[in-house]
Amino acid sequence: MAGILVINYKAYEQAFTAVGVKLASEAAKITSKLGVRVILAVPSIIASRIVEIHGDVYVQHVDPIGFGAHTGFIPPQALKYAGVKGSLVNHSEHKMIYRDVARVVEALRDAGLESLVCADTPGEAEGLAHLRPTMIAVEPPELIGTGIPVSKARPEVITDAVEAVKRVADVPVLAGAGITDSSDVQRAVELGARGVLVASAVMKARNPDRKLWELAEPLASV
Amino acid sequence: MAGILVINYKAYEQAFTAVGVKLASEAAKITSKLGVRVILAVPSIIASRIVEIHGDVYVQHVDPIGFGAHTGFIPPQALKYAGVKGSLVNHSEHKMIYRDVARVVEALRDAGLESLVCADTPGEAEGLAHLRPTMIAVEPPELIGTGIPVSKARPEVITDAVEAVKRVADVPVLAGAGITDSSDVQRAVELGARGVLVASAVMKARNPDRKLWELAEPLASV
Amino acid sequence: MAGILVINYKAYEQAFTAVGVKLASEAAKITSKLGVRVILAVPSIIASRIVEIHGDVYVQHVDPIGFGAHTGFIPPQALKYAGVKGSLVNHSEHKMIYRDVARVVEALRDAGLESLVCADTPGEAEGLAHLRPTMIAVEPPELIGTGIPVSKARPEVITDAVEAVKRVADVPVLAGAGITDSSDVQRAVELGARGVLVASAVMKARNPDRKLWELAEPLASV
Amino acid sequence: MAGILVINYKAYEQAFTAVGVKLASEAAKITSKLGVRVILAVPSIIASRIVEIHGDVYVQHVDPIGFGAHTGFIPPQALKYAGVKGSLVNHSEHKMIYRDVARVVEALRDAGLESLVCADTPGEAEGLAHLRPTMIAVEPPELIGTGIPVSKARPEVITDAVEAVKRVADVPVLAGAGITDSSDVQRAVELGARGVLVASAVMKARNPDRKLWELAEPLASV
Repeated sequence: MAGILVINYKAYEQAFTAVGVKLASEAAKITSKLGVRVILAVPSIIASRIVEIHGDVYVQHVDPIGFGAHTGFIPPQALKYAGVKGSLVNHSEHKMIYRDVARVVEALRDAGLESLVCADTPGEAEGLAHLRPTMIAVEPPELIGTGIPVSKARPEVITDAVEAVKRVADVPVLAGAGITDSSDVQRAVELGARGVLVASAVMKARNPDRKLWELAEPLASV
Repeated sequence: MAGILVINYKAYEQAFTAVGVKLASEAAKITSKLGVRVILAVPSIIASRIVEIHGDVYVQHVDPIGFGAHTGFIPPQALKYAGVKGSLVNHSEHKMIYRDVARVVEALRDAGLESLVCADTPGEAEGLAHLRPTMIAVEPPELIGTGIPVSKARPEVITDAVEAVKRVADVPVLAGAGITDSSDVQRAVELGARGVLVASAVMKARNPDRKLWELAEPLASV
Repeated sequence: MAGILVINYKAYEQAFTAVGVKLASEAAKITSKLGVRVILAVPSIIASRIVEIHGDVYVQHVDPIGFGAHTGFIPPQALKYAGVKGSLVNHSEHKMIYRDVARVVEALRDAGLESLVCADTPGEAEGLAHLRPTMIAVEPPELIGTGIPVSKARPEVITDAVEAVKRVADVPVLAGAGITDSSDVQRAVELGARGVLVASAVMKARNPDRKLWELAEPLASV
Repeated sequence: MAGILVINYKAYEQAFTAVGVKLASEAAKITSKLGVRVILAVPSIIASRIVEIHGDVYVQHVDPIGFGAHTGFIPPQALKYAGVKGSLVNHSEHKMIYRDVARVVEALRDAGLESLVCADTPGEAEGLAHLRPTMIAVEPPELIGTGIPVSKARPEVITDAVEAVKRVADVPVLAGAGITDSSDVQRAVELGARGVLVASAVMKARNPDRKLWELAEPLASV
């Protein structure tokens, strides 16, 4: 079973340009050639355009509301109509209180959609595991965007998170923060992660497409 | 010069279904037949799909950030890449502090985009007029979604807002809250509004397309 | 070892009047007569006044900041100067993101102060146990203020929370929500709680002082 | 008629120590000797202690709620019970949406209390003047805490705010941000301000008491 590569487009300008579109066609190729699942977590405003190129798309956030009179908020259930498969939830740059995470994860599940819930620490991950999301990603916020890979600088974060989550529920754990090259991905997998969550290393790469392939390869043979 | 009709799709389920798409083709017809400007303020996740049908699309909210490492937030500048013309700002259901409204209006203007800033009261409208947005809408929140039209129940809100805004800057004022039929639109225009902002009357109508035409007609001859 | 009774004054008008002051003198008597620890969680604006009457006072919230240029926020460390012993943290009516709970609990501990962290569910409690606060209270928000006691209506919430917290750390668990009379307190203790968290049953009682004694008595012999 | 000097204690450590207490006794002396009104805007947790020394005390923030089941929030009406005269509202470090400012100002007025509403710009001030607070302070946030006095670096902010507010209502305007010495105060008054709002210049002064007197003197003969 191959690993999972999640690319968070964030709100980098590249996300909205041809760079984001090109990444989507590479993601489609990687999935078919390597068998690696590549999830693109894109800004909501470009989601339906990216979905046409690569079928495996998440948005970066949904709101703890249902359909109704809400202006500028996205109900989890709305993703289905846009062909989007799921959402990041509680990302370090978009934190929610526990109760709202619970509400969103449940609404996504009820709609047949996926949730990738983020945690800063193994402790936060353990609490969130009770919500039984599709996946949990652990990302020490102090390493995000630094190029200092969690899998090398703080390997115990990954092993502790894997163990803490397992105590509660059978939910795959991804690792993120500072993941920059294929050896960082390799190491994360060795520590028990089922995949990685990457943003700047791809989005701000000189050659984003090549970087995408580089990070996907170690996940082919997991 | 014809008036302006803004339809706020909100997060009603209809916004995401064929209803929303059909409304967009009617909007295109209305614009070409009646010369009325119909702006569709849609959820970000369907914006690029609606833009292909009707060129005059806003999103319902943008965030006070620039391009960069932000997850689940939309920079004003990103709208250009999606073919979206502007954004609602500070809607009654998505209020922002004054400083953030200022930041968003300025970023939209700098990117050649439009801003429709909402105010609960003439006083709030006067303060916001200093930011010189493209348009200002005044909507008493206690009437939103009630079917009690501001233009009949509280006409002084419209006249006061028109006057207060004029003291500060030459910015057109729209009226919203409870607008339900063509006579409500007619009355709003007589009170000095350049157009109206409507949500539930169209989105939850038995026949949304017909309601759209009904509300547009009084604006043809403004 | 006797149990713990926490009275959350909330922002009931009684909190600010002679009722709140009188409760404090009763709390002092109860502590000395029954050996029960009675913690009064009071609005910050009356904390220093209540401290003079009863030594065991918490505030209801502190902010995730240090000393400095912050207007209208309370740094955890400031409690020491006011003679306050600790703070409620993450109460159901004042939720914080996990990261901020962590920051506040750590700052309180570093300053030699106590933290009583609240959780809606056993799952949230387990995650928060990693922060090693002084105590954890579990309170199903749907029962708060209803008079339907958690210890009778949803006993598994208490037993699950006690067990989940124990897996992680040796932190006493209190129970709250709907606790109304002495039998509710008795039952909570039998289910493994070290004490209870009460608000409306005392603050809105016909005779708050008598109610305070009634709820304290079952905790004398724990 | 003498001017008004508002000292914002913020959450500086000095606010909670003997420094804050000593400032209160100096404030009492200044009021009686110079006839200058000195308002101390203190952290809620020390308000009742400071009130005993100097009668003219505000808190730094109140919340848009009434009495009731709210944990860790302060209803405007509660100030009366603590002998506090009013509150800062919408300070640059604690911004609120317009609707909540309106609610708080109204609740304070209804309870016979005062409101000092802060604005970043003359435009924000004009909008807020519609709420008819007791006073309005204009403070360009980029100068707060810098020691670069608004009255010298950006005098037009003061004159524009005075003029904009006058257009709407008869509400005195104070000036703040970077006010450091008596000549800054003098200049603010010449530009039309009825007083000044000061924080770091006093709270972080080598000799806070002496600085208080220095800043008060130019206001004696306004």
